[in-house]
Amino acid sequence: MKSKRRDLGIIMSDKPASAAAVFTKNVVVAEPIKVCREHIKSGIIRAIVVNSGNANACTGQQGYLGAQAMVAAMSKEFDIPREQILVASTGVIGRDFPTEKVVAGIRDNATKLTKRRVAGSLLASSILTTDTFPKEGFVDFALDGTKINMGAVAKGSGMIHPNMGTMLAFIMCDAAIKPALLDKALKEVVNDTFNMITVDGDTSTNDMVCILSNGEAGNKEIDEENDAYHLFRDKLRVLCQHLAKLIVSDGEGASKLIEYQVNGMKTKDDARQIIRTVSDSSLVKTAMFGRDPNWGRIVAAAGRAGINYDPEKTDLYISSTFEMKLLEDGQPLRVNLADLKKLMRSTELTIRLDFKEGSENAIGWGCDLSYEYIRINAEYTT
Amino acid sequence: MKSKRRDLGIIMSDKPASAAAVFTKNVVVAEPIKVCREHIKSGIIRAIVVNSGNANACTGQQGYLGAQAMVAAMSKEFDIPREQILVASTGVIGRDFPTEKVVAGIRDNATKLTKRRVAGSLLASSILTTDTFPKEGFVDFALDGTKINMGAVAKGSGMIHPNMGTMLAFIMCDAAIKPALLDKALKEVVNDTFNMITVDGDTSTNDMVCILSNGEAGNKEIDEENDAYHLFRDKLRVLCQHLAKLIVSDGEGASKLIEYQVNGMKTKDDARQIIRTVSDSSLVKTAMFGRDPNWGRIVAAAGRAGINYDPEKTDLYISSTFEMKLLEDGQPLRVNLADLKKLMRSTELTIRLDFKEGSENAIGWGCDLSYEYIRINAEYTT
Repeated sequence: MKSKRRDLGIIMSDKPASAAAVFTKNVVVAEPIKVCREHIKSGIIRAIVVNSGNANACTGQQGYLGAQAMVAAMSKEFDIPREQILVASTGVIGRDFPTEKVVAGIRDNATKLTKRRVAGSLLASSILTTDTFPKEGFVDFALDGTKINMGAVAKGSGMIHPNMGTMLAFIMCDAAIKPALLDKALKEVVNDTFNMITVDGDTSTNDMVCILSNGEAGNKEIDEENDAYHLFRDKLRVLCQHLAKLIVSDGEGASKLIEYQVNGMKTKDDARQIIRTVSDSSLVKTAMFGRDPNWGRIVAAAGRAGINYDPEKTDLYISSTFEMKLLEDGQPLRVNLADLKKLMRSTELTIRLDFKEGSENAIGWGCDLSYEYIRINAEYTT
Repeated sequence: MKSKRRDLGIIMSDKPASAAAVFTKNVVVAEPIKVCREHIKSGIIRAIVVNSGNANACTGQQGYLGAQAMVAAMSKEFDIPREQILVASTGVIGRDFPTEKVVAGIRDNATKLTKRRVAGSLLASSILTTDTFPKEGFVDFALDGTKINMGAVAKGSGMIHPNMGTMLAFIMCDAAIKPALLDKALKEVVNDTFNMITVDGDTSTNDMVCILSNGEAGNKEIDEENDAYHLFRDKLRVLCQHLAKLIVSDGEGASKLIEYQVNGMKTKDDARQIIRTVSDSSLVKTAMFGRDPNWGRIVAAAGRAGINYDPEKTDLYISSTFEMKLLEDGQPLRVNLADLKKLMRSTELTIRLDFKEGSENAIGWGCDLSYEYIRINAEYTT
């Protein structure tokens, strides 16, 4: 089905790198995730190998052996310890894993690794499934006068939801930082970025976000939560938010990127929960696709989020190039319907709910639900 | 938009009836629900009035006055106390409520009430929105030699989800039963039936299931949890399950009715939670629409339900006219793909997951997700 496309990617650090990763919270986890959970424990990783086309999930013993074979091939070709290798897979669930083909691919590609600029783009292409474009990002910044480079690739288009939808993101950095602090920074940032996007509410068996940071920049190692740590974490957030928004923009069949802002909740978790519910509502998403100013669906979805609040205090705004207030203290405002319809035609929209219940805010991103999503997912394996 | 269709229904009991009702759990509730919550407290109701086309939700003070006007018109036309009247609305959210039109409709229809057989069908038609067919049911049974009649109408097609999706169901019965026992029976039955269906995961601001039972049959009043109570409750369950399945069959754009069976969980709530998650998964639903034997999505959706279990014990079956076992102890079985594709073409499918974690089972119903769902919901108000 996709034999002519790139379907294998290899990431290699010249020296052992500090490493951190977060994985799917699905009870059903793919074989490569099981391998990674073990190998990440040391906090030191040299290489990552990724295949697309087969998720190696629900594949039983055959799949377990396939993931192990990928590790063994990487270890042999590059002469690095098995436990410094991570493995990732994305694609169809429950099909026999094509071990021989993937191992041959590792062997064939081992001599082709390059540091050239094109490498990131080739890697970004190799991990795609239903994605329509490769996703990359790059930031640089200075730590105590030393230039730090941080680049990343990601994939994800369907099965996307908070708590790691089917998505993979690999971040490579040359800063020196202790593994424990790298882990802390990654987890904090993922909660605000990748865990605040949704395409279709499904959470994959294969999701993973991983960062390697190998110290080649030569900065003084970050070993406490000092200014350097905070700068590192903030730049990581910029990069991850960029990738997260790219993933939603490429949501299966999506025609709109929607930013959801929830203000004035009692807790940040409550605010996030409301965003998750509204951004995942099929009725909200189809209204957005239809450019239908049926804003009652937004308010109704918020109301079923399981969070208690007084609906008589809610304000609702929709904006793109201009902003319209639709609801004030739970009462609908008279608005110009022609203006509202014009607003709904924007490809990027912001929906803001202010509940005036407290001082906590959250932000998240979603897309619309279109005929194309159905086509892609009704015809995926057949 | 729908001026030529029936859009007002009135249910009247010749004498005050025992009454019980369950309402939406959405924080944002429509004005008629607020009225009903007050009026149902006494457990005695004479009449119900329902309008379709406008949900009277997010309508503020104007909508509050509209619901009150409906009660006042009913009270005046039929000379019954205001607190013995229930009001229900279904339709678009956040539009001005057409109070004058609805009140005129009550006045015009007050003289047209009939006990003829056609009444139920007319009522069933009057409460539809995006439904494609009216939904009715009837059972009769004997209590101590007295024949009891129990009939019902329901509507619901989109915004359907456990905990009362946009649906209305009104059950009329002539048994004599104490309000407290009627309430107990209704709540128990709703949990197993209407709360176990999903079309699109959205929960409306207007949902309500209500039963009136006026004692005209002349049976000995049910006043304790005796055999008569249990028979009454079981017949009520049959009727409600029938209506619940009709609603899912008419899910917006649905081409398939899917029964989900979860066996062998530690608790009934866990089993129900897994059904809710799987039946609401867009990826499962699009695979069903595409007749795509991509069963990995079922297993993956179960895994993200938030319930802890050992995926290495899971069995998965799909059946219609015949049954196929696809997964045993978490390991995929070799199956005949042609047979599986044939199975997937059925308009009624059963998906069974056996987790072998405990002895609790649950059952629920869902549908597929099609192009037609998108069309209906992208174009609803425009």
